[in-house]
This record gives sequence, C-alpha cells and structure tokens, in this order.
Amino acid sequence: MTATSPRTGTTSTRGPAAPTAAAQVALRPLGLGEATIGGGFWAGRQDANAAAIPLGRRRLEDAGNLRNLRIAAGREEGDAIGPIFADSDVYKWLEAVAWEYARRPAEELLAMQREVTAVVADAQAADGYLNSVVQVRHADERYTDLPWSHEHYCAGHLIQAAVAQVRCTGDTALLDVAVKVADHLADTFGEDRRHDVDGHPVIEMALVELHRETGDPRHLELARYFVEARGHGLISAYGHDPTYFSDRVPVREATTVEGHAVRAVYLTAGAADVAAERGDTALLDALARQFDHMLATKTYITGGLGARWDREAFGDPYELPTDRAYAETCAAIGGVQWAWRMLLATGDARYADAIERMLFNGFLAGVSLSGSEYFYVNPLQHRSDAHADGDRSPAHGRRGWFDCACCPPNVMRTLSGLEGYLATRDDGGVQLHQYAPGTVTAGATTLTVETEYPWDGLVRVRVDAADAPFALSLRVPAWAAGATLDGAPVGPGYARVQVAAGDVVELRLPMEVRTTTAHPRVDAVRGCVAVERGPLVYAAEQADHDTPVDDLRLDPAAPRAGAHRPDLLGGVTVVTAGELTLVPYYAWANRGAAPMRVWIPTT
Amino acid sequence: MTATSPRTGTTSTRGPAAPTAAAQVALRPLGLGEATIGGGFWAGRQDANAAAIPLGRRRLEDAGNLRNLRIAAGREEGDAIGPIFADSDVYKWLEAVAWEYARRPAEELLAMQREVTAVVADAQAADGYLNSVVQVRHADERYTDLPWSHEHYCAGHLIQAAVAQVRCTGDTALLDVAVKVADHLADTFGEDRRHDVDGHPVIEMALVELHRETGDPRHLELARYFVEARGHGLISAYGHDPTYFSDRVPVREATTVEGHAVRAVYLTAGAADVAAERGDTALLDALARQFDHMLATKTYITGGLGARWDREAFGDPYELPTDRAYAETCAAIGGVQWAWRMLLATGDARYADAIERMLFNGFLAGVSLSGSEYFYVNPLQHRSDAHADGDRSPAHGRRGWFDCACCPPNVMRTLSGLEGYLATRDDGGVQLHQYAPGTVTAGATTLTVETEYPWDGLVRVRVDAADAPFALSLRVPAWAAGATLDGAPVGPGYARVQVAAGDVVELRLPMEVRTTTAHPRVDAVRGCVAVERGPLVYAAEQADHDTPVDDLRLDPAAPRAGAHRPDLLGGVTVVTAGELTLVPYYAWANRGAAPMRVWIPTT
Repeated sequence: MTATSPRTGTTSTRGPAAPTAAAQVALRPLGLGEATIGGGFWAGRQDANAAAIPLGRRRLEDAGNLRNLRIAAGREEGDAIGPIFADSDVYKWLEAVAWEYARRPAEELLAMQREVTAVVADAQAADGYLNSVVQVRHADERYTDLPWSHEHYCAGHLIQAAVAQVRCTGDTALLDVAVKVADHLADTFGEDRRHDVDGHPVIEMALVELHRETGDPRHLELARYFVEARGHGLISAYGHDPTYFSDRVPVREATTVEGHAVRAVYLTAGAADVAAERGDTALLDALARQFDHMLATKTYITGGLGARWDREAFGDPYELPTDRAYAETCAAIGGVQWAWRMLLATGDARYADAIERMLFNGFLAGVSLSGSEYFYVNPLQHRSDAHADGDRSPAHGRRGWFDCACCPPNVMRTLSGLEGYLATRDDGGVQLHQYAPGTVTAGATTLTVETEYPWDGLVRVRVDAADAPFALSLRVPAWAAGATLDGAPVGPGYARVQVAAGDVVELRLPMEVRTTTAHPRVDAVRGCVAVERGPLVYAAEQADHDTPVDDLRLDPAAPRAGAHRPDLLGGVTVVTAGELTLVPYYAWANRGAAPMRVWIPTT
Repeated sequence: MTATSPRTGTTSTRGPAAPTAAAQVALRPLGLGEATIGGGFWAGRQDANAAAIPLGRRRLEDAGNLRNLRIAAGREEGDAIGPIFADSDVYKWLEAVAWEYARRPAEELLAMQREVTAVVADAQAADGYLNSVVQVRHADERYTDLPWSHEHYCAGHLIQAAVAQVRCTGDTALLDVAVKVADHLADTFGEDRRHDVDGHPVIEMALVELHRETGDPRHLELARYFVEARGHGLISAYGHDPTYFSDRVPVREATTVEGHAVRAVYLTAGAADVAAERGDTALLDALARQFDHMLATKTYITGGLGARWDREAFGDPYELPTDRAYAETCAAIGGVQWAWRMLLATGDARYADAIERMLFNGFLAGVSLSGSEYFYVNPLQHRSDAHADGDRSPAHGRRGWFDCACCPPNVMRTLSGLEGYLATRDDGGVQLHQYAPGTVTAGATTLTVETEYPWDGLVRVRVDAADAPFALSLRVPAWAAGATLDGAPVGPGYARVQVAAGDVVELRLPMEVRTTTAHPRVDAVRGCVAVERGPLVYAAEQADHDTPVDDLRLDPAAPRAGAHRPDLLGGVTVVTAGELTLVPYYAWANRGAAPMRVWIPTT
C-alpha cells in the first residue's frame, strides 16, 4: 500500500498533514503504514466506518451529488440539486476511500475511487475550473458571490482528496484534476490578481498539502495569500457580516476564534500549515494564542466547539450551554486538524491532549456504534420533551445523512486516516501521542504498543528493533495525575526515556473516576460536576435510570467505580457514582435519543 | 377625542381589544378615555414614546417603507426596498399615532396620519389587495409563498391600524381600505375558497377586531378559518418546517407554545378573540392550557418569551438561557395581547399578573429611557467581552431602528394604547388590574387612583361618583404576600370590596426586596437568585460595581434595602443586597451596554 508519488519521488503513505523537509516543525509525522492500529478501541470504530464507506457511495447517489457531477461531465441531463457545496461531500468521501485503502487495501475501494474520480475529471472545465453546481445551475457564472458560493471550499476538498489518493494508492488521476484546479485558482486569485476569499476556508490547508506533493511554490503562495487576505474587508465588501466568516480581524492579529466554528478552525489549521512551511513564527504565535483562548473559554469538556445554533458559531467567552451546544461534528474534526498542526509545529503536549479529548468525545459522539449514522450537532444535555426541530436536531437520534451532509463523509475520512495522528518522530527519537495497540515504525526503529486504552491505563511499549538507543516520548495526559513510567512518577507532558532494541517500557495512567467542575464563569453548569474516567467524558442516560435524567443529582462524596461491561454498547466501562450509572458520552443515543446529561447537579 | 364610529354608532374610544356585546367574556374593557394615566411611572414612558412617534415617521422614510407605498401608489418610480413585510412597520406606526391621539389629541398626529393614510389608500389595488413590496418587486404576483410572504401579516397590521384610527379619531379613511382588504381576503381564502394560511399570524386578531367595528360576519368567519386551518399541513405542503410557523398541531389540540415566539403568541391571541366571539369554551380551555405551560416552563422571570436566537423560537421546557435569551420585544408585546384576551375571557388574575410582569420587565427593557432607541433582543445577562454579531445584538446597545424593524413601532403602539390594559368592568362593578395614577370611568362610576407604583406599594382609590354601591376589585399580585386592603390581609387574586360614592380604599402591596429561585430544571440559573421588588425584576450592571459583573456573588443572608434615587436612570428605586447594587432590569443599558446580569450566583 505504500506508493511512489510520481511527482516527488518520495516513498511513504504519508498521512493527512505532511510538512516538507524545509518546514519549521518540532515533530515530523509518520506515514500511515508506519503507525498501525492492530485492534482495540479505535480498530472497532474504524471497522464500522469501513463498512459505512460503501453506504456513503449510495448516499451520494441518492442525494444527487454524484448526479450533479455527471451532468457537469455531460454524461447525463438535468438540473443540479442540493446545496451549492454538494461536490465537497463527494471529495471528502473520496478522501476517506483513499485513507481506508492505505489502512486495508481492497479492490472494491479502488474500483469506487476510479469510477468516481473519472466522473470528477470529466466534469472539469478545460481551464481547470470545477464546481458542478455552478457549472450546471448557474450557467458557469463563476465567483459571483464567493463568500457564499463555496467554490474554493469545494476545490479545497477536491485537492485534499487528490493528495490522499496519490499518497495512498499512487493513482494520479485526481491529482491531475487537482493541479489543474489549483493552477486555475493561482491564475485567478492572489496578490497581483483578483483579491477575494471564499467564505468557507479549507483551500488553505489543501493548497499547502498540494504544495507538499507538487513542490510548486505557487500553491503555497496562494495558500499564504488566502490566509493573509482575511480580515481586510473583502467579505464585508459583499455586504456580509465578517465575523461569521472569520474575516473581521487578520489571522495574525486575532486573539480568539469567533463566528462559524468550522470555518474558524479550518482557517487556523490552514494558517498553521502556512506558518510551518514558511517558518512564520509570528503567525504561529498568534495561532497558539487563539488556540489557548479557545481551550480556556470556548471549548466544551467534550472538546466540542461552537456554542450557538444561531450561525453554527462560537459563543462569547464562557458561553457554553449544554442543551443547545452546537458542537458540530465537523468542528471537532477541524479542531483535531488544527491541534495536530500545532503539535507538529511546537511539540507541545497540550495539543495532543486536546486531540485526545476531541477524538474520544466531541468527535466520536458524532457517529453511531454501527458506524453509519451521524450526529451533526452534539449537545451535552438532552432534555425530556425535547422537540425535534429541523433535520439536524439531536432529538431525532443519529441519522444516515443530512440535507447539509458535511459531517458524515468528514467522519469517514477522519476515522480512515486516524493512524496519522498517533505518533511522530524527531531527530532524537519517537513520540507517542495517542494510545492504541499496534505498531510504530520510524526508519529502522520499530515498536509494538500493547494497551486496552481507554478502558485500561496500562500502555506497554516494546522496542522490537532500533539501530541505536533513542528517546521514546510517551504523552502523559494532563488528567493523569499519579501516572508512572516503569514505576517512577511522571508528570503531565511527555515522559521521555532512553531505550534500545529489546526494551519494554510500561506507562500506567490512573483510571480513577474523576469529577470535574467548570470555570465559575461557565454559568450553564454552575452547581454541576462532570464525570470523567481516563480520556472519556461520561454521561447519564435515561436508559440506566428510573428518575428522569433532568432531575438526577450526584453526591460528590458517594463512592465511584468503573466496571467493564463487554455486553453493553459495544463494550464499555460503566461508571457508577452513588445511585447513578454513567456511560461514555460518545456512546449516548445508541439506545434511542432519550434524555442525557454530561453535567450533573450535585446534591 | 371620543368619536362616533360611522359603522356601529357606538360612542367610546375603545381600546385595543373590544369584544362585541355577544362575546362570551367575564370582563369588559373600558374605553381609552375611560381609563387615564395622569402621571407617575407609565406617564413618563408614554411621554417619551410620544416624542419618538414623529421620529418613527422619519425612520420609515429613511428605511424606504413609505417610499415603497408611494411607488405602489404610482406617486414615485423605483424598486421596493427592505423586507417583504415592510408595509407592516408603517401600519404599526399608524396604529401608534391613533392611540396617541386618543391619549393626547394633537393636530400634528392627525396631519401625519392623514398624509400616510392617503398614500396607503392610493397604493391599494382596485380589488382590495395591498402589499407594496409584492406589487412593486414581484410584479403583483400574489400569494405565491404565503408561509414567507407576510401578505396576511401586513393586511392584519393594516386592519389593526384602521380599527385604532376609527376608534380614536373617527376617521374612516383607513377603515375603508381595511374593509376592502378584508373583503378581498374573504373572497380569496376560507373554508370554501383557497385553503392557505400566512406564515406569520396577526390577521386573526385583526379580523376579529374589524368584525367588532363592521359587524360583518364574514370577517369573524375568516378569522375563525385562519385559526382552525393551522396544524393541518398547509405550511408543510410548501416544504417548510411546520413547528416554526405554529402549524404542527391544531390550535385547539396544542398543549404548549412552540416555534417562532412572536408567531406563536400572535396566533393564540387571535384564537382567544375567536373563542370569545364564538363562545368556544373548548378553544378557550386549550389556550388556557397552553398559557399555563408557557408560564411554567417557557417564560423568563422578566416575562420574556423565546429562548432561542436560532429561529427566534421558544425552546424546550425549562430551556431558558440568560446570555442568549432571545425574548424579543415583540414577543413580550404579543404575550401581553394574549394575556389580556385571556383575562377578559376568564377574569383570572394570573393573566393580569403575567401582563404586569411582561410590561414592567421584558417589554419595557425593549425601549430606552429616551423612548427612541430599542432592543430587539432582551437577554438576562450580558457578558464581559460579548461580541456584537449582527444588527440586533444587544452588545450594540439599544438602536434607533433595525433592518427588520418590527419592534420599534410595536413598542410605540403598545405604550400609546397602554391605558387599554388597566381596568375592566362587569355587571357587578369595576376591576383594576394594573396600577397607575389616574382616573377610571365606567358608566356613572368614576374613580381616582393615587399611587407611586411601582416604587411604592400604596394604591389609594377614591370613588368620586357612583349611582349605587358596586364591587371594586383590586388585583393583589401573586408576589405580594402580606398585602392589605384597608388594613385587612388579602391574598393573591382580586381583593373585592363593596364601595359607594365618597369611599376611599387603600391597597398596600409590600415592597420588600425579594429573592427568587428558579425551578430546578432551569439549568441556566442553577445556584443563582434573582432579586425582585414589587413588580420589578432587578439587575446588576457594571456601572455600579468594581468587580466584573460576571464574577459577582450574592449573599442570600445579607441585608437588603430599597432606596429611591430620583437622579438615577430617570428616577428609580435602587436595591442593595450586601455589597451589590441593583437597578431595575428595564433600565439596564441606559449607561452603555456593559455587563449585566439578572440571575446572580449565591455565595
């Protein structure tokens, strides 16, 4: 499954963010084949996701996305249907197919990929432009309202899919399309060309990644331009509110994230890519400041991002309602993408901690245990008598697809490419950021990781091979007070130990049940505690209680315990706290969308 | 200022809801001239409002509303601008002019009324249709998307203005237009005609009131039809979500209010009118049930209605966030209109209690002390670092007008017609529901009311004239534990006393500062208390504190006191509670839109 990129000659199935050799980063990602998940928690989620990918193909057919592209390709007659950004769902799904192929090569995946890629290629205009809805519905009138048209957004997802495809399968068919799209964009927009930005970022990340495949400086320069062009009134000039579009303040001057949450974190993730490739430490510092402010004032305990249904937006600092949390699944994904890029750039464990929190909670709640049904919105409380209002309401339970179907294929590509976020290397050694059983390879070094994380806190790492002694760094999460490495206490951050071939090290992360209180300015959860165990946030669900969940109280002094229940919810460790029984938040609403709450009032 | 209606021959300046003699009501409203406000709290608010009415004329010119009508009238060329419901702002303002004329006749008011009425009349199509935006912008293509087009909504506000105009000035010019509109509607919609409903109710209230002027049974029948037609899929058939439009459940089957708050309460107010005129006790009972559920689970302590910015909607039961309370000013107004109709129908004091709470708090916060700047949204908390997002954000402070300018002229008409909500009569006597200094006349009975309410709890009522002894009923608010009437304890509800000419009675409502806790399911204010004094809800504002308001704590055991400050905020009684200084909620943001909170965490 390792492919030779025909453009750069490198040999590795590089994951979803692969800085060039010239990039200023503290850590370098491993390839997907170099970090594998060989079972356990995440393998289960990935297998369910793998089974859902062919369903995704059918959903894209049923919803008209593929038909739109066929019409643009001249293969079919008709009008485009669905939202203006319909193409992007196809591209995210294609990206998932690629990462999934890297994980577990299968002809079925290649066949689907080739068929859909051929349609995409046929739909592309001669000059490189490609957006089926604009081409079909709007008579090819391009870029007339870029804040809303999502034309760069669709191009960005196309490019990301193409990069994944060439990395994972070596197939350059979609990359050829993507390069033509990018060249067309570089001919059209930029410092000396048309000044404009898409209302929905993603093109920034995509162009940097494309640059990493093509080496073409124009692609990086255009990414830089799109990042720097924001915050200078381009979107206001269309009469739109700039806050929503992350266009109120230049990225390098911003002190917080605001507006539409997914837009905001996609932009900052792309800006982090630009900062890394250009060695722009001022930009990186600005992003670190924004990330810190987000974590301190605008992030749910689940890692969920976005407090408001209104405009799907970040709220004001400490505005974190539980029942009306938006916490869009895509925002958690964008949060992971941003945090990963910050981690590569800085090596700071707090970003890996954030990734863990987002992945296990705010992100994973977005998909059913079956892997094929999704939440768009991820509240921390579901009330009795909650009324389902609109197709993305959690009161419906998870759904197979949405009118705006951004989340399902985004979940697919994230789970398929998850190995990309596990480990890194630097000149001194190897870093393990997320724990899953499997193998890690970095040059001549190979490791085997054994763990039942997140149910158990023991992580055993065996050095199977190594040319020479090296530094093995194991992340100790900030929540893991009392952690030990080979019996010696280790504090939060990276526990670093010198190892050689044949060594075995044991990290023990305490799995006591914890109760957490929020910052006193978080009015929404005053007088409440949340229950956590390891990296998992827990929730009370109606299925486990006779008392209405709305009326539960938790006695902070009551005894607490965890007990593994292989029979329940695909196998979970249940937590009891006094009379209460709690299940992992990510697993809620797999027994119906009944009342649930994460933050529980104390007695 | 009392006029003879040329259509019914009655002589009285009837107020904003005047049941026919045949209506089944427990109480009958007095005319506007029969209940006067001769000074004190509300007179100050009304005087400020009176000064703002001519400004409203200018705003309607600047925003293009009047120009739209002139274009439709063929007096001017051009395209219509502004929202589809632009005409309604003109009509609400015309209604305010009429009530204001009843309050204090002035040639300036008549001149404005005549000028604008003439434009409206000229804009009307020959067959009675009238909606300038549709006529101008949409080439007169009518009723193509009634859920969104607001065509009945505009007609409803036109009819309400016309009814007010003829009641207050005797001028039939607008009534002639309104009758033609109503006849056109009755020719077009109804049981045996086109089945359709406007997405935004108000036509129901309007048609019943028109029927009360014209006596035409078709107008009442059409109102009945529009009420009963809801909840049967008419709006879903357009592909819209029925909840938002109060179209999910038939009005007589509904158990709660839901969806867009203003739409919901305008509809129920109109349904109450229909129930009264038709003696439909089953419908009235259904409305009482919905009102109770709204008060118990979906009403802020301020009387504010609507928990969600998203769709300007009621939330689920007990979903009452403070920072993101929507509590649209128009929703409080609609709440008063609904409660008033329920009060007339039932004589139940809880409706008058609700009116008091809404008027003094959730409604009155919607307008500045100057009378000319408005809040669209009325949160119960304003955070530090709150970011103004969009033109109706409270972070801007009150504003002179809005892109969607429903609230300002709605405030105007409510304040101008406020006398209509003070008192009623029945066969046995007179009921005083709201306390203001002034006079009350009911037939041969005249009363003088002296009070400094809401600052002081003494209400002295003198019977100046009466043919015979009668029952005087004085509302004792539910909050007024310890109230006395002439020294004797009286419980909540109506204190009823037999009086004759020359009698003076004294109601004493205790004005101790109270702290209030919320129902435990209101998660948003757990661990907090609200401070109230008399009918007023209090708030902590940053101007009175060195500590950030976000971090204030209230010691429930600390001494509390009220002190009148004639110099502050137009004259208010300030409350101190321990270290905290609180001002009436309605007066917040008159010293800048700085941090504020109603619900204060306890120590």
